[in-house]
Formats: sequence, structure tokens, C-alpha cells
Amino acid sequence: MRRRNRLTVTEYIAGIVKNDRQILSQAVTLVESCLPEDRQLAEELVEGVLPFTGNSLRIGVSGVPGVGKSTFIDRFGQMLVSREYRVAVLTVDPSSAESKGSILGDKTRMEQLSSSPQAFIRPSPSSGILGGVSAKTRECSLLCEAAGYNIIIIETLGVGQSETVVKGMVDFFLLLALAGAGDELQGLKKGIMETPDMVVINKADGENMHAVNKAQIELKEALHFFPKKENGWSTEVFTCSSLKGIGLESIWDKIQNFEMKMKHAGTFDKNRALQQINWMNEQIFLLLKIGFYSCKDLLEEINQKKSMVQTGEKSALSAARELVAKYHSLNSPKK
Amino acid sequence: MRRRNRLTVTEYIAGIVKNDRQILSQAVTLVESCLPEDRQLAEELVEGVLPFTGNSLRIGVSGVPGVGKSTFIDRFGQMLVSREYRVAVLTVDPSSAESKGSILGDKTRMEQLSSSPQAFIRPSPSSGILGGVSAKTRECSLLCEAAGYNIIIIETLGVGQSETVVKGMVDFFLLLALAGAGDELQGLKKGIMETPDMVVINKADGENMHAVNKAQIELKEALHFFPKKENGWSTEVFTCSSLKGIGLESIWDKIQNFEMKMKHAGTFDKNRALQQINWMNEQIFLLLKIGFYSCKDLLEEINQKKSMVQTGEKSALSAARELVAKYHSLNSPKK
Repeated sequence: MRRRNRLTVTEYIAGIVKNDRQILSQAVTLVESCLPEDRQLAEELVEGVLPFTGNSLRIGVSGVPGVGKSTFIDRFGQMLVSREYRVAVLTVDPSSAESKGSILGDKTRMEQLSSSPQAFIRPSPSSGILGGVSAKTRECSLLCEAAGYNIIIIETLGVGQSETVVKGMVDFFLLLALAGAGDELQGLKKGIMETPDMVVINKADGENMHAVNKAQIELKEALHFFPKKENGWSTEVFTCSSLKGIGLESIWDKIQNFEMKMKHAGTFDKNRALQQINWMNEQIFLLLKIGFYSCKDLLEEINQKKSMVQTGEKSALSAARELVAKYHSLNSPKK
Repeated sequence: MRRRNRLTVTEYIAGIVKNDRQILSQAVTLVESCLPEDRQLAEELVEGVLPFTGNSLRIGVSGVPGVGKSTFIDRFGQMLVSREYRVAVLTVDPSSAESKGSILGDKTRMEQLSSSPQAFIRPSPSSGILGGVSAKTRECSLLCEAAGYNIIIIETLGVGQSETVVKGMVDFFLLLALAGAGDELQGLKKGIMETPDMVVINKADGENMHAVNKAQIELKEALHFFPKKENGWSTEVFTCSSLKGIGLESIWDKIQNFEMKMKHAGTFDKNRALQQINWMNEQIFLLLKIGFYSCKDLLEEINQKKSMVQTGEKSALSAARELVAKYHSLNSPKK
């Protein structure tokens, strides 16, 4: 049965596998949909494309606002495209709960890459309470892989939850920094930021070169004192000028070197297997939430408890405990 | 029944209410404990202190690493103490999943404030999968309120999830910035950062003054274009030198002005009521997770599915769906 102009799962899969960009876009929209009636179709779709996935290198690109992520990805992506790779770019959008803001604006800044037929650029929408940005970005990257994109770049901010989330879904994690990157260095030292597989100091051009060289030396020294990673990889510091296209090749060579080494040691697949387990757990949490809030026998009591908590008649803690106990006491609370 | 040298709930409450600092510390440790056997006692304790809570002003202080949060809180806290306030400082620790790093180091930097008998400083430990930093920081702040601390300062980083979490548990949200705060401004504009109730440009002293004045004007102009907040409050830009203790009084005057206005308009209580609802929802999620993972009839199947997902025999999506369906099909899956 079709709803809301959706295709069938078979039609989506056929379209994606032969890289029909329009169908891929529609499929991503379906996967990102928060409508409950879209969810089953979306899951069947993701399950359906799984046999066609896994043949890509997944690269996370992180860095604080202003560091030049969009320009870097634009130029880096073009370099990959010129080497016959097919590149998909997704963003994990850490939009704030209040403003529902988004970094959608970034898309238009990757002008050149987005005009290439070998590239597919798609920012994520804001997350809802039942959503979970990570699950959806993960699902979208699978769709892109099934459509034959063999480099998946996932962009995120350089601090906090979204960074951790992205690290949990990529093979290689690259931190973009600027000269005078005191914040990044401090963040790394304190363990607030994820340890990247590579640090790239951007804007290494013109008058900036002196500061960049200094920053590179400082960062190298600082990273020297980090404990060695479990996979044996040492984080190195590269410089590049996205604007002038300098340094991008060396970065790519090093990433390929990483891929080769990790695949040889079996670490590459082990890491992906672990990521799958984490994904399973995320999905479990999501389904538990959905089960609870779609339990019709509970709706009235949820609303009652809410008003009592709001007026201070009942504490949030005991209201939650009572609601979950009630939920558990209902037999087979399937939706 | 006592375990692990724990006191009884009554003993904890009695000790907290008469501000026995040792018992308060032990109570915070109990609330932060991840041991399942501590959880019930912790909840009873938090429920028990609720009648003694609510009589404080809760202030969130946010800002990227290096902005000088610790020094600011140290001096701001001392100023409050000199005005006979009792000040508790808690930190929400956005430790990364990989390194289990923490900003515990900050505690020792608030040297002067921590030596005051009217102050209580406590950093949070890292969060576990079943933990939820926010819930525990919220609970700790209630314990501090019950112990008579009437100003609760909650410290966090200026970007990402932890910032949103802290905004959801305070009355007033202050963003600390530096001159040349391009990142902060960009973050605010893009909605990546939470809109604060006040921006304070720190390190307004010595040679820095010219840059600070320039930054203040820029920030003021930028904030001018923000949509007005629902509560009618306009975010203003202040400057201060934590080091020299300049500007702290004006900041405090403005915060008191905020409290007065919001209480008068009824917005203060409305905001707290909403925060309670959010807290209830967080607790529900937590209990749902705990219920699932402590369901003994499911343990074997969880492990089976995990291995299948790891080896790629089964997708994470369908494993999660099957496990949750099984969980829901078990009658009354109480722990």
C-alpha cells in the first residue's frame, strides 16, 4: 500500500542501486521522516539496501565553526572526484533544542562539489525527541553506499555529543583546526574532544604561514604525550590551504595508508563490528521510547502525571517511576 | 538494611538539612553512584529532600575551554559569599566516550572559593551508559539546595549537548566569551549555541581593553538582530575582569533584576515547571533502559543477537527490533 506518494521498497532499492539521484534523494527524505507511518517503510528500505553497502571509506570531518569545514570538504571532495571516486557528504546537525537552528546553510557553500555528478551532498534536518540524528545519518550513509558512493564524508562540530556520535560511525576521524588553536589543543588535552586520527591545520597560506608552522610544531609536541591508540595508529598533524588547494593530496595519501594498515591488521572490520553493536543499542533505546509513548492505555495517565509535576504536587522522579511501573505492568504493551 | 557504609535516608536528610558538609559530600557520592543497589536509596534521598528545595537561584555558566570559567566562578562566588550568600558549584562534565576524560582539574583552580565555609564545589564524574549526567547534576543541585545553598552555579562547555542540558536545569544562563569571540558569535548566529540570558566578555583588563570594547559593540549589534525571547528578556553584553575583580557587581545586579522581573511575570515558576516535565521524561527514558537491560529472560538473546550483529549475520536494525518485540511480548517484564 502506498502512502504520501512513497514508492515501494523494491522501487526505492532498484532506483538507488542504479544511482538514480532523484530516487536516492526521495529515499533519504523517507529515512529522515519523523512520521510514524514512514518508519516501517524506511526500515525495510535500509534493511533492503544492506547487501549493497559496506564498500566505502567513511571519513568524519570535525572542527569548530569558522575553521573552514565546508571549504575543506568542497575542495577535498573535488580532488577525490578528479580521482574517479564518488563522494557523498552528510552533516550531523547539532541544532540546539531552543532555536531549532541548523547548519543547512553549509550546503550552499559547497558549491563546486555539489555541481559534480559524482557527488551527493545532503545536510541532516534537526532532530526530534524520538529521532536521534545519529541513527538517521547512519541510515542515510548506507543509502549512499548502496548508490555506489565509495567515500562518505560526515561533517560535524568539534566539541560535544555530536562529535562522539560521528566518531561512532566512521572509519577515520579528521579534526580541522586553525593556527592558534588553543581551544582545540586544550579540548584534546582534557579529553573533551575526541582524539582524531589526523589533525589538519587549515588556512595554511599567505601571511598565515608563520603561525601555521608554529601551531603545527606545538600540536605535534602535544600529541606526542598522548597515550598510543589501541589500534597502533599515531595521530599526525598536517597543514593545508583549502582555498588554494594545497596539501589535500598528502592528506588523502595518509588516509589511504590508514585504511591499508587497519585492513591488514583486521582492526578496520573489528571497529565496524563494534559500531554495529552500538547502533543496535541506540535502536533499542529508540524503540523503547516509541513503545512507551505510543501505548494508548497510558496516555491519560501520562497527561495526569504531567499536570501534577507541573504544579509541584508530585516530583518528577516518582511520576516517572510510577508511569514506567504502570507501563511494565500492562501485559504485552505492543503498539 | 545498610550496604557499603551507607547511612539511612533519614540520617542523610537530617545531616543535609543541618548542612553537615561531610554528609552532604557522602550524599552526592551516593547520588552519583552507578551501582544499581545504590539507586533506590539515592532516589528515596532525593525525594526526601524535595520539601527543602527550590529556594535558590540556579545560574548556568557556559563558555569554551580557555575562556576562564573557573577563575570567573571563583571570583564571582567569592563576591556572593561576601554578600552572605551560600554558593554551590557543580559542573556538567561532557567527557568523551573514548577517553573518559574529565574537567575535574577545574576544581583545584577555584582555590579561594573552595576554602570558604559558605561554598561547596563539586565536579561531576563521567557518565555511564545508564547514567545521564543531567539527571545526576540535577539531583546534586537539589541536595545542595536542601543544605541551604541559595545560589547554585552549574558550569558547562559552550557548545553542544551539555550546554542544552544545563540550560534545561537553570533559571539564568550566562555565556562567558573572550574578545575576538568569532566562534561564539558564529555559534549563536547559527543556533548551534543556546541563546544566553547574558554574555560576559572576560579578561577585560590591561592591554586587552581595546579589543574588549570592540567585541562588546559587535556582540551588542549582533544580538540586536536576534528575535526577542518569549519571556521578554533582552540579552545584554557585559565585560569583566575575573583576575582584577572588576565588573562582577554589575553582573550580579543584572541577574537580580532578571530574577525580580521573571518572578513578577510568573515566568520564573513557569520555566521551572517545564523543566520538571523534561526531567520526568529523562527519568522515563532512563527507567525504560534499566528495565530492558535488567530483564533476565532476555540476557541470553541479547548476547546471541550481539554476536550475530558483530559477524554481520544480522543487521543492527532488525536485531534491535526483534529484541524489543521479545521484551514487549514477555508478560510484565518487571525487574
